[in-house]
Amino acid sequence: MRTAEPLHLRLLRLLRDHGTISRAELADRLEIPRPRLLGEIDRLVALGYVAEAGMAASRGGRRSTLVELNPRLRFAAVDLGASSVDVEVTNGRLEPVAAYTESADIRSGPKVILQRVNELLAKAKVDGAYEKLDAVGIGVPGPVSFRDGVPVSPPIMPGWDRFPVRELLTREHGCPAVVDNDVNIMAVGERHGGVAHSVDDFLFVKIGTGIGCGIYLSGEVYRGTDGCAGDIGHIQVDSHGPMCTCGNVGCLEALFSGAALAKDATLAARNGTSPALVDRLAANGTVTARDVAEAASEGDVTCIRLIRDGGRRIGGVLAGLVSFANPSMIVIGGGLAHLGHILLAEIRSVVYRRSLPLATGNLPVVLSELGPRAGVTGAAVLASDVAFEQAS
Amino acid sequence: MRTAEPLHLRLLRLLRDHGTISRAELADRLEIPRPRLLGEIDRLVALGYVAEAGMAASRGGRRSTLVELNPRLRFAAVDLGASSVDVEVTNGRLEPVAAYTESADIRSGPKVILQRVNELLAKAKVDGAYEKLDAVGIGVPGPVSFRDGVPVSPPIMPGWDRFPVRELLTREHGCPAVVDNDVNIMAVGERHGGVAHSVDDFLFVKIGTGIGCGIYLSGEVYRGTDGCAGDIGHIQVDSHGPMCTCGNVGCLEALFSGAALAKDATLAARNGTSPALVDRLAANGTVTARDVAEAASEGDVTCIRLIRDGGRRIGGVLAGLVSFANPSMIVIGGGLAHLGHILLAEIRSVVYRRSLPLATGNLPVVLSELGPRAGVTGAAVLASDVAFEQAS
Repeated sequence: MRTAEPLHLRLLRLLRDHGTISRAELADRLEIPRPRLLGEIDRLVALGYVAEAGMAASRGGRRSTLVELNPRLRFAAVDLGASSVDVEVTNGRLEPVAAYTESADIRSGPKVILQRVNELLAKAKVDGAYEKLDAVGIGVPGPVSFRDGVPVSPPIMPGWDRFPVRELLTREHGCPAVVDNDVNIMAVGERHGGVAHSVDDFLFVKIGTGIGCGIYLSGEVYRGTDGCAGDIGHIQVDSHGPMCTCGNVGCLEALFSGAALAKDATLAARNGTSPALVDRLAANGTVTARDVAEAASEGDVTCIRLIRDGGRRIGGVLAGLVSFANPSMIVIGGGLAHLGHILLAEIRSVVYRRSLPLATGNLPVVLSELGPRAGVTGAAVLASDVAFEQAS
Repeated sequence: MRTAEPLHLRLLRLLRDHGTISRAELADRLEIPRPRLLGEIDRLVALGYVAEAGMAASRGGRRSTLVELNPRLRFAAVDLGASSVDVEVTNGRLEPVAAYTESADIRSGPKVILQRVNELLAKAKVDGAYEKLDAVGIGVPGPVSFRDGVPVSPPIMPGWDRFPVRELLTREHGCPAVVDNDVNIMAVGERHGGVAHSVDDFLFVKIGTGIGCGIYLSGEVYRGTDGCAGDIGHIQVDSHGPMCTCGNVGCLEALFSGAALAKDATLAARNGTSPALVDRLAANGTVTARDVAEAASEGDVTCIRLIRDGGRRIGGVLAGLVSFANPSMIVIGGGLAHLGHILLAEIRSVVYRRSLPLATGNLPVVLSELGPRAGVTGAAVLASDVAFEQAS
């Protein structure tokens, strides 16, 4: 059964998303009686969530005072990738006040990686980014039990299964923490500050080292019964296809992902079918997905074909998901999104041809606006939500 | 934003699902103060939704009076199939007091079919099943705008596009009406009184003339942006497969559905690969999906293979949907569910092998309990909900 959002959550989110605002306008926007609002604001000021911010311009009668989130609020947002760590510290309005990005292998295990996260946060503190954190949000590249705050059987994260990530961060920083899947936090970020702003039903498809899907239904992240909804990288697209790391054959991400594309590109460089990739292999010793993107933009036909083939595979899976879920938008993000419009055109072509016309009549298929910042943005949103919930 | 369920809805649903109950127990179950409950009951008695039903056994103090739904409440539940009309009239507890089933071709168009529905309901009235209907619920075999109460571009329902089904029924019977997709009402029925009782996240897969999927997420039917979520019959499973009625090739329902199976079975009878089907074709002039089921249960290897091939196709699509949606149950219903355990075993085998282990660790794949009554049961549930909403 659905329950209404508590007033303090609605109020704090409004201040987070709209900034400084007068008491009078708050009462109008939240549609609640003024005495109740004023009492609630006083309570949140006393708790340190809200601060006074001077007088508003007159609306005719008595001038209303402005309020804002306490300028000292600080959230830590962490996005762990297969091979990278992104850490941001934000203020209450989710504007970054410190940001760090570095390489790290998730397979080093939770102790090493979370130690490094804590070191980066300690550095931010020394640099003056915060005195005390109010919440930490973290995304990890694998399935998560959102309720328990732990990764669950994550295929590419050896040593992380059921590791108490939330508990460790809570203890270390003395504040609430929230753990989610990396694709879910990207979807949350894109809805908060990107192309899916205020869209209630959409799919965020991450095409990177692996492939995953963040699902927004009726305005909320849908995580499924075990927290692993959106694991579309292992949908079989070719029963005669190559072996996947998961042990099955012909999975989507075995055919098209950062790893699969680099492998196909290396082959095309070695057998000479792509002159552009031959040059790059000779110059750098390896070829990557980024080389394919560059060569394609220079008109290399083999690279264009590789991207189109991949787009066709992704499009086929998405066409099925559109028929199933009937979303109102599809956002394409992740490292391979930089393959850009060749990829997007092929995905669109398959989705529009293969799905029910009713479902695609008004269905934008678009690139992520936030790009590599989608993850940390979403982690900051989740951190602020969990901090605001404490204000009950 | 989520809103709490109003008291009158919670109260009326409790009486619908649990029957006669004392005022004291109602107060306990709904966890609301007794004075507020008693006021609400008085209001619902005055409106004709609730009736007194004698005295409860003593719980120590003053004896509490029993209440129940007004015994005169009546709902009409209608399930339109591609070739059948099912009509039930139920009491407030959704127990049938009259039921009619007959053949009808949905392609006859809305005027002919709804005229026949109204004739059957008029007959039920003459037979004494009701004096006045309190609501009508109807399921149709195609996409529906639930908000507008009209079919939208339904592929197998010529003449029905945007026909004002809800408006016509409301005017004819002087009560609210609700229109939904036939697979959705089956899912609603199965959750109310079948194997998915109280399960919040499940897929109801109908395998009949066509193939469709009812989706329950977080305890509510998920209909998608345009009301066509769950249209899985046209997911492509073989890019070299046969032409589908929708104009694409290799759709799931072009490869396995009542129509596809009858075609394959006729071929097997004509070319003599199935002795059991040769006999049936000679005896009856045609062979149907039911003949395949019977021949398979007698051990006919060709028929067993046809069912297994179909199960493998369905299983492949469901494996992808399990990876995507991570449901906690899959229910198989519709006419072809009578293919029984050979079909179910094959579906299970593919789903358990092909989906993420985390998602299938505790995932029952089961047959519908309500069988052909799933649709009318769900239509009655929707009718009661829309009637109860009027009591605000």
